[in-house]
Amino acid sequence: MNIIIIGAGAIGTYLSAAISREYNVTLVGKKEHGLKEHFKVIQKNGILLSGFQTLMSKVLTTRELKEIPENSLIIVATKAYDVRTVFEQIKGIEKKDTIFLLIQNGIGVKEEVKDILPNEIIRAVTGIGAEIVRPGEVRTSRGKVVLENTPSAQRVGKIFETVEFDTHISNNIKMEEWLKLSINAFVNPLTTLLRVRSHMLSKPELRDLIEKLIDEVLTVAKKEGFAVPREKVLKTISRLDQYHNYSSMYQDIKKGKKTELDYITGAIIQLAKKHSVPVPYNEFLYASIKYLEKYGY
Amino acid sequence: MNIIIIGAGAIGTYLSAAISREYNVTLVGKKEHGLKEHFKVIQKNGILLSGFQTLMSKVLTTRELKEIPENSLIIVATKAYDVRTVFEQIKGIEKKDTIFLLIQNGIGVKEEVKDILPNEIIRAVTGIGAEIVRPGEVRTSRGKVVLENTPSAQRVGKIFETVEFDTHISNNIKMEEWLKLSINAFVNPLTTLLRVRSHMLSKPELRDLIEKLIDEVLTVAKKEGFAVPREKVLKTISRLDQYHNYSSMYQDIKKGKKTELDYITGAIIQLAKKHSVPVPYNEFLYASIKYLEKYGY
Repeated sequence: MNIIIIGAGAIGTYLSAAISREYNVTLVGKKEHGLKEHFKVIQKNGILLSGFQTLMSKVLTTRELKEIPENSLIIVATKAYDVRTVFEQIKGIEKKDTIFLLIQNGIGVKEEVKDILPNEIIRAVTGIGAEIVRPGEVRTSRGKVVLENTPSAQRVGKIFETVEFDTHISNNIKMEEWLKLSINAFVNPLTTLLRVRSHMLSKPELRDLIEKLIDEVLTVAKKEGFAVPREKVLKTISRLDQYHNYSSMYQDIKKGKKTELDYITGAIIQLAKKHSVPVPYNEFLYASIKYLEKYGY
Repeated sequence: MNIIIIGAGAIGTYLSAAISREYNVTLVGKKEHGLKEHFKVIQKNGILLSGFQTLMSKVLTTRELKEIPENSLIIVATKAYDVRTVFEQIKGIEKKDTIFLLIQNGIGVKEEVKDILPNEIIRAVTGIGAEIVRPGEVRTSRGKVVLENTPSAQRVGKIFETVEFDTHISNNIKMEEWLKLSINAFVNPLTTLLRVRSHMLSKPELRDLIEKLIDEVLTVAKKEGFAVPREKVLKTISRLDQYHNYSSMYQDIKKGKKTELDYITGAIIQLAKKHSVPVPYNEFLYASIKYLEKYGY
């Protein structure tokens, strides 16, 4: 199977390095703002992984995907708000058997693009924390990958297993999306607003505030038909202690980049409106982060 | 009338310089953390006022108030949380005719100390923005002073008028306190959380958030019996455009000092509980600022 990874951000770079140990991988580095130097170093020297896994990996790279071989898996590892553009650019060069895998934060990502192409799309959710620490180097934490159970899920799951990812196939990927969302929804915007590393959210002074944020999300999830287990989400608060990275949203704001806020907090607020559920704590975060996104740190 | 000003922060220093143009003023510089250098420069060179008024003023200074002459007005210009200590230290050296003037932010300041001494206490509210820009120099904005209508209010009001303060005497000082509180309650913690100068709060992206904060405070005020006019509070949002200073709370957190949060947002939350009024937006601010107060910027 040919593996094409689109997006040379932290996750895309990490997946490229890990999977290229056993498979042919082509990393497509879109002309993202701020990542030019990172991609240049990868083209010249390869990818250095540090943290949970340490390895140096050479991968094929390209700036533009011009053709797609038969039997290809395309892992879209861009930000949520770029997935639609990726699909529109691919339209016309895809093969019948091309499979897509979407590994973004947030909800509604697959729904937004599933009518653009007739191909199989596997939604994937991951808890991996990854951060580009310098051009060409990505630091990662341990984490699992959950794949949506579609016709090719087993086959794609094998690829992840072979390169030592903790891989699961789920018959209820929407539940996994909501579980991840209920964690993202406090970790990302709150670390960004307070300007702290993730582990600082485990301080007792923030406990009440975080529980209120979580409860708002769980109420909306329930209205949507997903009974996300509260205890499972609360457990992540203490586990944050080990995460000394800056969240992706913090990193985005710091670099003056657009955040995924609309697919996380924004999506929650939209659904809350639909069900007439009050979500003031999430609204506070939404307004503050939008403001910081516009006017900077 | 002898005028003693306790507290050499921004407001105390400003009042000392302004009033000493026409009256004998003694400035009592408590041993506040971080203001040592400021007080030393005042002792050596006097006070330099810039901004709305520009003048250089010499004042009598002391580190400790050992005696109080007959016919004295003591202006307590410390932070709200220090007023009780000031009263306890004065107890025993006050004269029968000593008058106190309290000029803090927040509510409940007078109520907290009025039983410690039998003397007349005038509660004062001011919208003056003042900032110590370097040791010995205070930059100020235009602002008025409202005095509570007590037996000596007219006499004390004349002092402020003589040195060109826009002075009013109010029969409903609690209403003035609430009006000021409803402004302080969004300006102080929100500029601190977003780390911006006051004028940045006039950006349209924050309008909804600020209105929600204001409405929570006005609801609590109404339950307490004070119908603060909403339009009057909203008007201050556009006027903020002219205030390029950092709020006192921002300055406090930046210097690692305790803030007046408990007399502003904390007081609102306490009263909201009493009346079973939900104030989630203010609760968000309270938790965040307490966190920043403890762990720093």
